[in-house]
Amino acid sequence: MQNQHEIGILGATGMVGQRFIQLLENHPWFKITWLAASDRSSGKRYEEAAKWRLDTPCPERIAKMTISPAEPYSKDGAGAPKIIFAALDADIARELEPKFAAAGCAVVSNSSAFRMHPNVPLVIPEVNADHLHLIEDQEWRKESGGYIVTNPNCSAIGLVLALKPIEERFGIEQIFVTTMQAVSGAGYPGVPSMDILGNVVPYIKNEEQKMEEETLKLLGSLDGEHIAPLAARMSAHCNRVAVEDGHTESVSIKLGNKLGRPATKEDLLEAWAEFKPLAGQHLPTAPEQPVEWIAAEDRPQPRLDKNRGRGMAASVGRLRPCGLLDWKLTVLSHNTIRGAAGAAIVNAELLLSLGKLEPVAEAAARA
Amino acid sequence: MQNQHEIGILGATGMVGQRFIQLLENHPWFKITWLAASDRSSGKRYEEAAKWRLDTPCPERIAKMTISPAEPYSKDGAGAPKIIFAALDADIARELEPKFAAAGCAVVSNSSAFRMHPNVPLVIPEVNADHLHLIEDQEWRKESGGYIVTNPNCSAIGLVLALKPIEERFGIEQIFVTTMQAVSGAGYPGVPSMDILGNVVPYIKNEEQKMEEETLKLLGSLDGEHIAPLAARMSAHCNRVAVEDGHTESVSIKLGNKLGRPATKEDLLEAWAEFKPLAGQHLPTAPEQPVEWIAAEDRPQPRLDKNRGRGMAASVGRLRPCGLLDWKLTVLSHNTIRGAAGAAIVNAELLLSLGKLEPVAEAAARA
Amino acid sequence: MQNQHEIGILGATGMVGQRFIQLLENHPWFKITWLAASDRSSGKRYEEAAKWRLDTPCPERIAKMTISPAEPYSKDGAGAPKIIFAALDADIARELEPKFAAAGCAVVSNSSAFRMHPNVPLVIPEVNADHLHLIEDQEWRKESGGYIVTNPNCSAIGLVLALKPIEERFGIEQIFVTTMQAVSGAGYPGVPSMDILGNVVPYIKNEEQKMEEETLKLLGSLDGEHIAPLAARMSAHCNRVAVEDGHTESVSIKLGNKLGRPATKEDLLEAWAEFKPLAGQHLPTAPEQPVEWIAAEDRPQPRLDKNRGRGMAASVGRLRPCGLLDWKLTVLSHNTIRGAAGAAIVNAELLLSLGKLEPVAEAAARA
Amino acid sequence: MQNQHEIGILGATGMVGQRFIQLLENHPWFKITWLAASDRSSGKRYEEAAKWRLDTPCPERIAKMTISPAEPYSKDGAGAPKIIFAALDADIARELEPKFAAAGCAVVSNSSAFRMHPNVPLVIPEVNADHLHLIEDQEWRKESGGYIVTNPNCSAIGLVLALKPIEERFGIEQIFVTTMQAVSGAGYPGVPSMDILGNVVPYIKNEEQKMEEETLKLLGSLDGEHIAPLAARMSAHCNRVAVEDGHTESVSIKLGNKLGRPATKEDLLEAWAEFKPLAGQHLPTAPEQPVEWIAAEDRPQPRLDKNRGRGMAASVGRLRPCGLLDWKLTVLSHNTIRGAAGAAIVNAELLLSLGKLEPVAEAAARA
Repeated sequence: MQNQHEIGILGATGMVGQRFIQLLENHPWFKITWLAASDRSSGKRYEEAAKWRLDTPCPERIAKMTISPAEPYSKDGAGAPKIIFAALDADIARELEPKFAAAGCAVVSNSSAFRMHPNVPLVIPEVNADHLHLIEDQEWRKESGGYIVTNPNCSAIGLVLALKPIEERFGIEQIFVTTMQAVSGAGYPGVPSMDILGNVVPYIKNEEQKMEEETLKLLGSLDGEHIAPLAARMSAHCNRVAVEDGHTESVSIKLGNKLGRPATKEDLLEAWAEFKPLAGQHLPTAPEQPVEWIAAEDRPQPRLDKNRGRGMAASVGRLRPCGLLDWKLTVLSHNTIRGAAGAAIVNAELLLSLGKLEPVAEAAARA
Repeated sequence: MQNQHEIGILGATGMVGQRFIQLLENHPWFKITWLAASDRSSGKRYEEAAKWRLDTPCPERIAKMTISPAEPYSKDGAGAPKIIFAALDADIARELEPKFAAAGCAVVSNSSAFRMHPNVPLVIPEVNADHLHLIEDQEWRKESGGYIVTNPNCSAIGLVLALKPIEERFGIEQIFVTTMQAVSGAGYPGVPSMDILGNVVPYIKNEEQKMEEETLKLLGSLDGEHIAPLAARMSAHCNRVAVEDGHTESVSIKLGNKLGRPATKEDLLEAWAEFKPLAGQHLPTAPEQPVEWIAAEDRPQPRLDKNRGRGMAASVGRLRPCGLLDWKLTVLSHNTIRGAAGAAIVNAELLLSLGKLEPVAEAAARA
Repeated sequence: MQNQHEIGILGATGMVGQRFIQLLENHPWFKITWLAASDRSSGKRYEEAAKWRLDTPCPERIAKMTISPAEPYSKDGAGAPKIIFAALDADIARELEPKFAAAGCAVVSNSSAFRMHPNVPLVIPEVNADHLHLIEDQEWRKESGGYIVTNPNCSAIGLVLALKPIEERFGIEQIFVTTMQAVSGAGYPGVPSMDILGNVVPYIKNEEQKMEEETLKLLGSLDGEHIAPLAARMSAHCNRVAVEDGHTESVSIKLGNKLGRPATKEDLLEAWAEFKPLAGQHLPTAPEQPVEWIAAEDRPQPRLDKNRGRGMAASVGRLRPCGLLDWKLTVLSHNTIRGAAGAAIVNAELLLSLGKLEPVAEAAARA
Repeated sequence: MQNQHEIGILGATGMVGQRFIQLLENHPWFKITWLAASDRSSGKRYEEAAKWRLDTPCPERIAKMTISPAEPYSKDGAGAPKIIFAALDADIARELEPKFAAAGCAVVSNSSAFRMHPNVPLVIPEVNADHLHLIEDQEWRKESGGYIVTNPNCSAIGLVLALKPIEERFGIEQIFVTTMQAVSGAGYPGVPSMDILGNVVPYIKNEEQKMEEETLKLLGSLDGEHIAPLAARMSAHCNRVAVEDGHTESVSIKLGNKLGRPATKEDLLEAWAEFKPLAGQHLPTAPEQPVEWIAAEDRPQPRLDKNRGRGMAASVGRLRPCGLLDWKLTVLSHNTIRGAAGAAIVNAELLLSLGKLEPVAEAAARA
């Protein structure tokens, strides 16, 4: 592994930062060499600054690392690596991510801050890898080689994975979705236990808007220099439930007419089964089968199915006719793996395989 | 209270049977004098046969009562009272409820067995009291004075309460609903803890069909001798979540054109606020305000709002425009009070106030 | 109710403050006329400042009240009432409660700040009402009429209620207790949901020490001017579990020899059944039966039993021989009613019935 | 892996049976070739008969296997393999396990049926491997080569792992333990969700007795032909909590005087750190560090720590002085891995490494 690329994590102490660390331990292409967090944590050892909440231990090497200031250049001349995974709150991301891009870093971001920016690609490798072309229009790219790439909100990603092969073959005109989202999506401390034990909270701030606009951008098409969102209508209801990990979504869809005849249940199952857009690319974190169909009538369920494809596959089940649109189904995906850290990692793997990380490294070498 | 009517409970040991007992303690009009359950329980004292699961103690008088066989007439000549609350599984209800009706009993049933039967009224007093007219067409009624009246499924009742004032003023053309249902709706032992801790189960057997057909029958109109269901299209997704009591529902609706102009948010709030169809009737269990609007952006929530109107009110909140239909909202109601035992009790109160229980008693006196 | 006493609540927006409001609505002796909270809330209406987390609505009158600064005297000359219920964090209580006592207020505190102070009575009315004598030694009392009275930690109060009649009749030499405590005891936001869903946290800061020292002080005896703690040995293990309300405790005890022979199970049941130390005093919030024995082999349970005696009774069950000490049992009590707000209210009722609130009011009148 | 031993699973469809299947997939020494369950399941394919509840998919090969009758010999001459993992309810185990032992099978049982039988070893490899000597006294062994070996109850096993190194170095005279046990320990459907959501159940049938007597047998010594239980006094309180997997235990212990001076905290930590009794034996399922000390003040916790040592390690934490005995601590272990299926598998690995499975296989070959 002498060719591993050095990477840094912005926001390393939070829930998503911890998932980055967990998923990047033993990664064949990337090696964590830099961790940054808020001023409060800077200068501390990682194990002192982070309250580790995952069910595998924090790797010993990481636990002993010192947290750097969240700046691309340090006072002693050494700086952040040129590949940065960012797991920041939107407000902070809005300020910090451009600084790192301007400094020549490839910022692979999980934040919502720039997802809907016209020049910033919002990407799921299996869905819209071609949107990465937007990078080349970013000013930072032209000046320093740096750029920002984003992955979608945890509630949008499973849905879009499940819908992409449907959209390709049949078209999609209308989308109804009600989410039942896990608490880990809110970070730590996040949702107070008094709010969620024996309860449902029918509200997650800004989530419905994000889910609607991101879904349509992801399913949209690259039209010259910009993205034309999918011309479908959509309505999202977002709820929080007493689940640790895994977002469950009740979905209804109205298909388009690309097929020239009504799609059957078999058509849809076939579309999912044959959906392997990354086959042959060997991205280490990409699941072999991005959408897994489960035939049992009461699945998918978060406790049982969230870890399919090592947490990177979306599960679909309960496909049945809808009284209002065409089809009803249930979609599930792991919200902090496929829906956050894993999404960014597979984006970085795609960028590397496309040669989009090397120029960054070179630019860094020149600097 | 010398004029209290004697009532019996069929299926007294289950979760809904226990709610009947809890809600009828101190009832001004009804007094429990007879409890029946399965053969396994018959002959035992209630406290021996029932595993009491409510958070108020079982009334001492009830605990000591002996459970009768589930037959309208006993061997010693004494029989069941002429008003029967039935909390039976559908299969058993299908067999037993007609026996009691044929024996001259008013069977006020919470079972699904006869809800969709053309001659059996499916009633929420605030919504469609006029449907009770169907009783008069029942053969049992003609022969013995007995009849069957039903209340809806726990998932339909909150929704229909919330929609009724909307339907009246504006019309409703399309209904989309995703439920997040409490475990108490499945009875005891019901949902295994291994299935629901940290989990969502996206399936409840037959629930979606029941919810769709019952909703349209309840909002339908009495047309001579039968019910014309509401001519709306509907789609239900039913899920089980880790909540003890209280069904939460994410709802989207498309309105009709009764108003002659698009309804505003204020129009809908006014419709709910003014919805007091039972005002002046003084039914003891009916809530003063059947639909309670909650303005806070993250409500209603089952833990906080299920007991509004002593568990008999539906709560509505989060009214906002829908990207597909007209409006999105959240509806909540208590599934074993408003959604089961309380629903039957208020039906019986309505029947009594309409004089529909007296003939039963008289017929009984003549028998 | 023209003779209701005006009371104020310090820390009115927190979980315990909300319980004070809920329990004092319709109280026959006390009327809330003043609410105070942190500077952040001061000046706002209560409904704006507090995130109400109880399952009964916030009373309309309270919701509209303006929150006062947490000072005994206001700038406009009007001041706090002379009876203050305090629900403050210990650090803030340590600073504020003496100010109110010095200003002539009877401070009926739920805070831990002064519980172990030698001059401050730590009182459960059914257990050690005579300890109130300590008030008279407080400097504030001598100077302004004001004083501080405290109630115990939520984990100690149920245990001590259960043990008091045992200690009286048989003596207690050793106490072993493991708690399984509800999340509401940690306030709001309190325990993050990521910490407690599907989990047990075997640690609550300072709780074991508090529980041990408070238990022995409560069961101790007034010896002239100070309290001699019970000469028993004790060991507490405190855990947090995924329960909203109600602390469950596994307890083992070694009895003393007051009886002159080993106590039987019947002796212990009789001690609890006959434990009615407040009989005839008619304190409105005191339960008729402070310790309720439940015979079922799997009780008490928080979901089913926490509300006994309107949340003011401790439940005991599972009495059986212990392989190490003499007896094993399970104790349960509601942690925010009997264990917090209700404890302070019944303390105030006792103080009023003893004439200890009137001098305060008089002193206030003279001031 | 041509030398893999064929094994069978009795009770393959239950929760522990499923864990056997999960843990034995890819096992280097054992290969599942036979599955048996109740008459209801016999003849069905495994995937039809079992409701799989684990969060990794049922292996494809197993899903397609046909379930055999629970008899050592089948009608067609082929029989069960000679190594049988048994995951049966005690009543059924009492009847079936002797049949398999008599037929020459090594019955490696997780059932409680024969654990306390004087001739049946109750074994944890790290704790009392020498107790396996009891096998040789079993009549079945003498006649057919078959025998029964058992592992302890899920509540005893973590405790005993934690206590063994303490007992060895310092002696143990008294043990207090309160358990907070996961629902998976009760099987499926097991604990109804209505009993455990937001609740604690302070009762598990027969659990306290099992835990006390098994602990002392496990820590006892082989004295010629029988086991002398540890001469310590013990008291267990057993509770069920809303946790899916992982039993948490609050423990107090009084040490003996083997050391000749009071043990310090460092002594105890050293005893755990150096406790590697199987080092060099290379049993595939045995954890490298059977007891893992966690220094953080709020650990171990089931959600975070149950999977240490791939679910086979016991975690200990919160070591502190006890007001009654000498030391307080918290112990955690995974109840269906270390506490059930994994315990039996490591017992079988030990038996194989000791040559105790070969004679069985040979006897089988001769038969």
